[in-house]
Amino acid sequence: MDKAAAELGAKKKGLKLPKGRARAAVSSKNKKAEKPFIKQDKVEKQERPAQERELRRKTPVKIIPLGGLNEIGKNFTVIECSNDMFVIDCGLAFPDSEMLGIDIVIPDFSYVEKNIEKLRGVVITHGHEDHIGGLPFFLKRFNVPVYGTPLTLGLLEGKLREHEILDSCKLCTVSPRQTVKLGCMAVEFIRVNHSIPDSVGLAIHTPAGVIIHTGDFKVDYTPIQGGIIDLARFAELGNKGVLALMSDSTNSERPGFTMSERKVGDSFEKLFAKADGKRVIIATFASNIHRIQQIVNQADATGRKLAVSGRSMVNVINVGMELGYLKVPDGLLVDIDQVGQYAPEKMCIVTTGSQGEPMSALTRMAMGEHRQVSVNPHDFVIISAKPIPGNEIFVTRVVNELMKLGSEVVYEDMYDVHVSGHACQEEQKLMLSIIKPRFFIPVHGEYKHLIKHKATAMSVGIPEDRIMIADIGSVIETDGVDMKITGTVPAGKVMVDGLGVGDVGSIVLRDRKRLAQDGLIIAVATIDRDEGIILAGPDVVSRGFVYVRESEELMDEAKTLLTDALQECLDNGVHEWNAIKNRMKDDLSDYIYRRTKRSPMILPIIMEI
Amino acid sequence: MDKAAAELGAKKKGLKLPKGRARAAVSSKNKKAEKPFIKQDKVEKQERPAQERELRRKTPVKIIPLGGLNEIGKNFTVIECSNDMFVIDCGLAFPDSEMLGIDIVIPDFSYVEKNIEKLRGVVITHGHEDHIGGLPFFLKRFNVPVYGTPLTLGLLEGKLREHEILDSCKLCTVSPRQTVKLGCMAVEFIRVNHSIPDSVGLAIHTPAGVIIHTGDFKVDYTPIQGGIIDLARFAELGNKGVLALMSDSTNSERPGFTMSERKVGDSFEKLFAKADGKRVIIATFASNIHRIQQIVNQADATGRKLAVSGRSMVNVINVGMELGYLKVPDGLLVDIDQVGQYAPEKMCIVTTGSQGEPMSALTRMAMGEHRQVSVNPHDFVIISAKPIPGNEIFVTRVVNELMKLGSEVVYEDMYDVHVSGHACQEEQKLMLSIIKPRFFIPVHGEYKHLIKHKATAMSVGIPEDRIMIADIGSVIETDGVDMKITGTVPAGKVMVDGLGVGDVGSIVLRDRKRLAQDGLIIAVATIDRDEGIILAGPDVVSRGFVYVRESEELMDEAKTLLTDALQECLDNGVHEWNAIKNRMKDDLSDYIYRRTKRSPMILPIIMEI
Repeated sequence: MDKAAAELGAKKKGLKLPKGRARAAVSSKNKKAEKPFIKQDKVEKQERPAQERELRRKTPVKIIPLGGLNEIGKNFTVIECSNDMFVIDCGLAFPDSEMLGIDIVIPDFSYVEKNIEKLRGVVITHGHEDHIGGLPFFLKRFNVPVYGTPLTLGLLEGKLREHEILDSCKLCTVSPRQTVKLGCMAVEFIRVNHSIPDSVGLAIHTPAGVIIHTGDFKVDYTPIQGGIIDLARFAELGNKGVLALMSDSTNSERPGFTMSERKVGDSFEKLFAKADGKRVIIATFASNIHRIQQIVNQADATGRKLAVSGRSMVNVINVGMELGYLKVPDGLLVDIDQVGQYAPEKMCIVTTGSQGEPMSALTRMAMGEHRQVSVNPHDFVIISAKPIPGNEIFVTRVVNELMKLGSEVVYEDMYDVHVSGHACQEEQKLMLSIIKPRFFIPVHGEYKHLIKHKATAMSVGIPEDRIMIADIGSVIETDGVDMKITGTVPAGKVMVDGLGVGDVGSIVLRDRKRLAQDGLIIAVATIDRDEGIILAGPDVVSRGFVYVRESEELMDEAKTLLTDALQECLDNGVHEWNAIKNRMKDDLSDYIYRRTKRSPMILPIIMEI
Repeated sequence: MDKAAAELGAKKKGLKLPKGRARAAVSSKNKKAEKPFIKQDKVEKQERPAQERELRRKTPVKIIPLGGLNEIGKNFTVIECSNDMFVIDCGLAFPDSEMLGIDIVIPDFSYVEKNIEKLRGVVITHGHEDHIGGLPFFLKRFNVPVYGTPLTLGLLEGKLREHEILDSCKLCTVSPRQTVKLGCMAVEFIRVNHSIPDSVGLAIHTPAGVIIHTGDFKVDYTPIQGGIIDLARFAELGNKGVLALMSDSTNSERPGFTMSERKVGDSFEKLFAKADGKRVIIATFASNIHRIQQIVNQADATGRKLAVSGRSMVNVINVGMELGYLKVPDGLLVDIDQVGQYAPEKMCIVTTGSQGEPMSALTRMAMGEHRQVSVNPHDFVIISAKPIPGNEIFVTRVVNELMKLGSEVVYEDMYDVHVSGHACQEEQKLMLSIIKPRFFIPVHGEYKHLIKHKATAMSVGIPEDRIMIADIGSVIETDGVDMKITGTVPAGKVMVDGLGVGDVGSIVLRDRKRLAQDGLIIAVATIDRDEGIILAGPDVVSRGFVYVRESEELMDEAKTLLTDALQECLDNGVHEWNAIKNRMKDDLSDYIYRRTKRSPMILPIIMEI
C-alpha cells in the first residue's frame, strides 16, 4: 500500500452517507416479507473521524470465508461483529469428477446454525449460480431477509419458486448507493461491471472500520447498460480510509485489462455480415443479458427474427424484459416452434449450451436431437463463451458435431466472440490504488489466483504483512489496527444428491467409485447353519463387470469355487457370519483378479433358515 | 493445388531410390526375428515415368484409416494393394469420461484379421503412445515384422518386454531415407521434426503412385538433435509427382509457425537464473528427449546435479542414453534417493507429471506423498507442458498444491516453457506447397481439425474436390487418376480393461454409469414356491446409495414394502420369476425415488428351496 496516501485518506473526515435516501428506496419486494429494518441514522452515528479510528483499537470484526477461497464456486462469507452477523452471497459449486452422482455442492452452514441468534440477513452481490445457487437451501433453514438488486432478486425468485419457498421468503430490493443496516453494521451497495447486469460491490461499515468487498467485477468504460462501475464511490471511501479490501481474484493470472462487453457487439456485427444468407445460431450464458441485448440489436439491425431455445435462456430473457434490463423491439421475438417458417437469412436463434453441457439445447442441436432446430449447411453457429476448465472436451464435441452437420462454427478465441466478466491485473491494480486499504484479502479464486493477486497488490505498494491469504473456515479478525487469523470454524463441501443434502459422504462416494471402476459381483446362498448344509445357491450375479453371456465359463467356475469355500466353512464348523463371508469374498476376489486383472466389488450375502 | 506445378513435377522422371543402400542398412534388431525381405530392385522397377502414370489408371490402392480420424489417439491406417497390405502405426487412446473403469482404448483389428494373409508388416512413424501403444495387442495376434527407427523400436521394446512377447517379435531397424519393400509396395522413411527424436514421415511407393504420410511433424530449423525435417526429399518427391498426401492436422486451428524446441532452452536459461539459490524441479513429457537434453545442459551449465523421478522418465532417459539420443555428462546424474544430500542450488530434478496425472511423481510431490522429494519454499517448479484438453483441472490442482507448499511455480503460457510438436498452419502450407499432391487427406485430428486443414489446403490452391475428409473405417481407393470412398469396413474403439480386450461393451458401461450415479440396492429373499411362503428375507443390502446407519428408517420401510409385495405375489399365485422380481423392483424403485429423488440400480434376487 502507498502508506502515505492511505494515511492522508484516513486523516480526512469520516464517511458521509446520503441521508434518508436508503430508507426510502429500500423496499420489500415480496409482499409477505417483513419490512427490513433500515435505520440510516444509526449508520451515521457509528462512523467516526478517520484520524480517531487510526489511533485506537475498536470493537473487532470477524470476516469468515466459508466458500469461494481455494476453489471456484459456492461463494459464502460471514461478517460478524459483537452480537450481529450477516452473510455475503450463498452460491453453489458443481461437483468435481470424484463426486459421482452428486447434483450440486453447497457450503457448510453449521457455523451459521450455531450462531443463528446473531444472523441479521443475507446480502447478494449478483445473480450468478456461484453466488445465489445455495440460497434455497440456506433459506429453508434460516428465514432471514435477503438484500439484492432487482435483477438479482428476480433471478433468485425463480429458484425459490421451484423450491416452493418463495412465499415465505423475505426479499428486499436495494439499489446501488443504498445502505442496509444489519445490527451494528451497515452494508452499502456500490455498482460494478460484470457479465450479468445489476452487479454490486459492498462497503461494509463496521465499528472497526470500512471493509470493501468488490463482488465479481470488471471495469467497463462502455457498458451496454446500467452504467460504469462506481469508481467515484470506491475512491471516496478510499480517501476516507478503508480498513480492508476483499477483491475478486478470478483473472489474477491475466495481465492487462479485460475488454469491454461492447467489443463482442463489434464482432457480432462482422459475423452477422459474414453469415449473410445463413441462419445465425448463437450460444451464450443465459445470465449474460448484455450479450443477449447485443444479439437482439444485431438481429434487429439485420432484419432477422429472434427465437430462444433452452429453459434458462427463456427464463432469463423473460425476467430481463420484465424488469427492463433487456429491450426487445416489438415483433422481433418468435416462438421456437415457428423457426421453420422463416428463411435462414431471416432467423437468429439464441440458445443455451455454450459450455457443451450434455443436456443443453445447443448439444441437442449438434446431436440431431433438438425438436425444433435441425442444424444444416445453411447455419452459422457462434459459441460466444470460453470453456470453463473441465468443459473443453464437451465444447469440442459439440463443435465437431455441428461441423459434421455442415454448419460453419465460430468458437473459442476466434473473432473476439467473448470477453471475461472479471478484472485482469491492471483493473485489480486500479481498485487497489483507489481504495488504498490498510489490509488486503484476495478472494474468489483458487490458491494460485490468490497468490497472483497478492503479488499484484505488492506491486502497487501493499506491504506483504498486510495481505491475508486465507482459507475457507479461517476466522479473520480485525480491530482496526491489526488483522489476524484467530481460529477456524467448520467449513467444507455439502453434497446435494436428489433430495438428500449432506447424506452422501465419503463412504458412499468410495463405493460409487469402486462400482464405477469394475462393477460388482454378488454371491448369494441360503444355508441351514445348524445342519451345516447349503439349501440354495451359491448364485452369482454381476453388474458392470463382464458381459455375462460371453463369460459363462468364468461365472461357472466362480460358482464352483464359492460352493467349495462355503461347504468347507460349514464342514469345519465355521459358523461366524463374517468369517464365512470373508472366506467367500477372498477366494472369489483372488480368482477374479487372477483371471481378469479386475477388482469388482464383491458382496457375499448369506441367508439362513 | 498449384496444378501447373504439379503437372510439371509429374512430367519429370520417376522416383530414383538410393540403390542397395536400404538393403544394407535395414537390419533385424532382434536376433530371433526373421530377416526382413527388402528387395530394392523391385522397388525401382515398379516406378514408371510420371508422365505415363498421369495418363492412365493403374492398379488401385486402398487407404483405410482405422484410427486417428475424428479423434485424437489410436492412430492406425491400413494401406492395401492387390494381395498386399501393411499397417502404419498402431496406437492407443485414453478412455473418455464415459468409459468408466477402462484402462486404454485400441483400434478394431477385425479388418486386418479378415485379410491376415495379405499382411506384410507394420511401419511406425515415431514412439508416442498414440502411435505404438496398441502394438503389443496387435503383435499378439499378428506376428509380422515391425519397421521403425532406433529410438522408436527402443521404446517399443520396453512395452513388448512388459507384455512378455519381446522374444517372439520381429523388430527391424530402419533409418531415414531407407526403403522397405512390403509386397508390391515400398515404404521410404523420411526424417521429420517432432516432440520425440527419430520421427519420420513416409513415402509409400505404390503401383498407383506415391502416397506421402507426414506422420506427426513440425518444421524446426534449429532442432536440438537429429537434423532438420528432410524438406529436400519431400520437395524432390513433390517434383516427381505425388498422388496423395496424408498430413498431420493437430494444430490446424493455429495460425503461424510452431516455435523451435530451442526456444524452450532459452526460457530454461532465464528461469534457472531466476531460480538462483533454489532447487529446480521440471516436469515434462518423458518422451521429449530434446527437452530433457536441454534440462541436462542447463543443469550442467549451472553446476547442478540432476535426479530423475517417475518410472517412464527413468525408462526413456535410459533408452535415450543407451541409443545415443541423450548426452549426459559423467557425474551429472545422481540417484533420486540422494536428493537430500545436495543443497537446493546444486540440484535439479526432472520428473513426470506435467499433465497432473493423479499417480505421477509431480502429483505425489504436490500432495506430500513423494518418498524422496519434499517440496518447500526453496523449490522452483517448472511445468514444461501444455495441459491436454481434459487435464486442465488436474494440472491446476497440482499447481495450487505446489504453491501451498511455498514453492514458486511456472506453468502454462508463462515464459515459453513449452512448444508444440505439431505443425501450425504455415508449416502445413509449406508441406502442401512442396509436395503438391494430386489428392489431399487431412489426418490425425478431430473433425474440426480436419476441416480447418482442408481450408488451409484450399488456400494454397488444392481444389476442394481433391480433398478427402474421411472417417475411420472409410475405404479410400485411388487408381492414380481418381480417388473416392468405395466402402466402409469395421472400425471403432476396443476397450481394454485389465486382461480383457474388448469384453467390456455398452451394456457393462451402462451398468457402471448407473452404479456410479446412485449406487445399488439388492433385495434378496428365499422362498418356497410350492407352499407360497417366504423362508428368509427379504433382506436389503445397499452400496453407494445412502449411508445406511443414518438411513435405518428408509431401509426398514423398504424391507416392509418388499415383504408385502413378495407375499402378495405368493398369495395371488404369481409364481413366475420375472413377474415377482419386477413387482419388487417397481415397488421399491417408486418408493425410493419418492423419498430421495434418486434412482439406484435395484437388483431383486430370489432363491428357492
